[in-house]
Amino acid sequence: MPPLPSDLAFVPFVSVQNMMRLVHALGLEEMLTGLAGYIEDDFRRWADFDKTPRIASHSAEGVIELMPTSDGRTYGFKYVNGHPKNTKFGRQTVTAFGLLADVETGYPTLLTEMTVLTAIRTAAMSALAAKHLAPKGAKTMAMIGNGTQAEFQALAFRALLGIEDVRLYDIDHGATAKVARNLAESGLRLAACASPEEAIEGAQVLTTCTADKQFATILTDNMVGSGVHINAVGGDCPGKTELHRDILLRSSILSNTRPRRGSRARSSS
Amino acid sequence: MPPLPSDLAFVPFVSVQNMMRLVHALGLEEMLTGLAGYIEDDFRRWADFDKTPRIASHSAEGVIELMPTSDGRTYGFKYVNGHPKNTKFGRQTVTAFGLLADVETGYPTLLTEMTVLTAIRTAAMSALAAKHLAPKGAKTMAMIGNGTQAEFQALAFRALLGIEDVRLYDIDHGATAKVARNLAESGLRLAACASPEEAIEGAQVLTTCTADKQFATILTDNMVGSGVHINAVGGDCPGKTELHRDILLRSSILSNTRPRRGSRARSSS
Repeated sequence: MPPLPSDLAFVPFVSVQNMMRLVHALGLEEMLTGLAGYIEDDFRRWADFDKTPRIASHSAEGVIELMPTSDGRTYGFKYVNGHPKNTKFGRQTVTAFGLLADVETGYPTLLTEMTVLTAIRTAAMSALAAKHLAPKGAKTMAMIGNGTQAEFQALAFRALLGIEDVRLYDIDHGATAKVARNLAESGLRLAACASPEEAIEGAQVLTTCTADKQFATILTDNMVGSGVHINAVGGDCPGKTELHRDILLRSSILSNTRPRRGSRARSSS
Repeated sequence: MPPLPSDLAFVPFVSVQNMMRLVHALGLEEMLTGLAGYIEDDFRRWADFDKTPRIASHSAEGVIELMPTSDGRTYGFKYVNGHPKNTKFGRQTVTAFGLLADVETGYPTLLTEMTVLTAIRTAAMSALAAKHLAPKGAKTMAMIGNGTQAEFQALAFRALLGIEDVRLYDIDHGATAKVARNLAESGLRLAACASPEEAIEGAQVLTTCTADKQFATILTDNMVGSGVHINAVGGDCPGKTELHRDILLRSSILSNTRPRRGSRARSSS
């Protein structure tokens, strides 16, 4: 028998099952609010972080990305994929895991599932941005794209922004029905809408949450009134578009990632 | 209780302990030879691979790197650190793990320790290169830098090239003594040498295997005769140097990685 590995070789691991246990024990609202607090703290020390761009490996069906960063004390990276067709075969669009390591020794200190965490973080980040950028007193959100992420978005906007009404639309009515079912006990008032135009009626926050690389236009210029907050979640790589160009030209744009070379998108109108 | 994760969420995992079991069961020589065969096959289909450069995060004490690639069917990446001072505190210079994923779904298919695998792969790659590039009938290798990797190098050169004599040198004589002890039953003839000059006497293969970012010169120009094969293992990031510039100027250089931007180092003399 070979000798046993050193105690220093062991790395704590959080499985999907244990992450789900954690979410159930803490409560999703508590986790969304807590995570948003950590994210806000990290934005306040933004200069500490290494801004290495994500490393994407694109294929016909999707993308696999590595997202490393470091604050000089702790190194971390996330592995995440995006494969919209996966849901046709019983798989998820997104799976993810992540690692923390000690910069001084290079030794991993935590390995964790991040499929659940990515959904929660994305929603917490969206709601945190809206807390600072959306019209004060916003109570109604349009939710276009009703996949699994839509549920996390809705709950985060309820917890952090006080959204009360969510107007749902998806080209797949079954997806809308599923979100409505899963959020039935959430305390949100839900409306299943027949068109994107109907969904955005009276909404101060417009969330688009789609995942396909189809160069889509979810919102056109004439659909969007002035002063609304758009939370465009899906468009994070080439071909994954959600907004017509004209909307971008008259918007104040804030992005939490920037292209590998070139400057950060930031315009005012 | 939350529901159990789907069967599709499970990923096979090879721990350090199981990798050590595998090495002991197969035999290190068998693994070195087998791995060299797979590496050779992969070089024959070099065009299939995505050549994304490694993503390095440098700190004062070392470096943490992610090394992704894909052949269009399988995606893989390795996490690896290099922290030379770790050995002072009972830790290893290098730790590593890696992942394979299915490009079509983005789902991970294997998670494995790669600390042991990295040592074996590096040695197999070195010996494979020497098989094609070193003088025919080479029987003697100088081994400068006698850390753990030196043992794997010596065994790989014995298995793949037929090296019979290994002449050891390290600034730390304790390191040389340890390698000599660990290789006592290997079938290699070992000589502990008092200087690098003594170590390279009569050697057709010169291996340098050092890890510190000290802009070191292990081999100077006048130490190296013509027609020898230099296997410079250590110099893989800024500051990790082993050879005097003049050696490079009169050598045929083959590197299996290239800088992020700029052309591959390749010269003839």
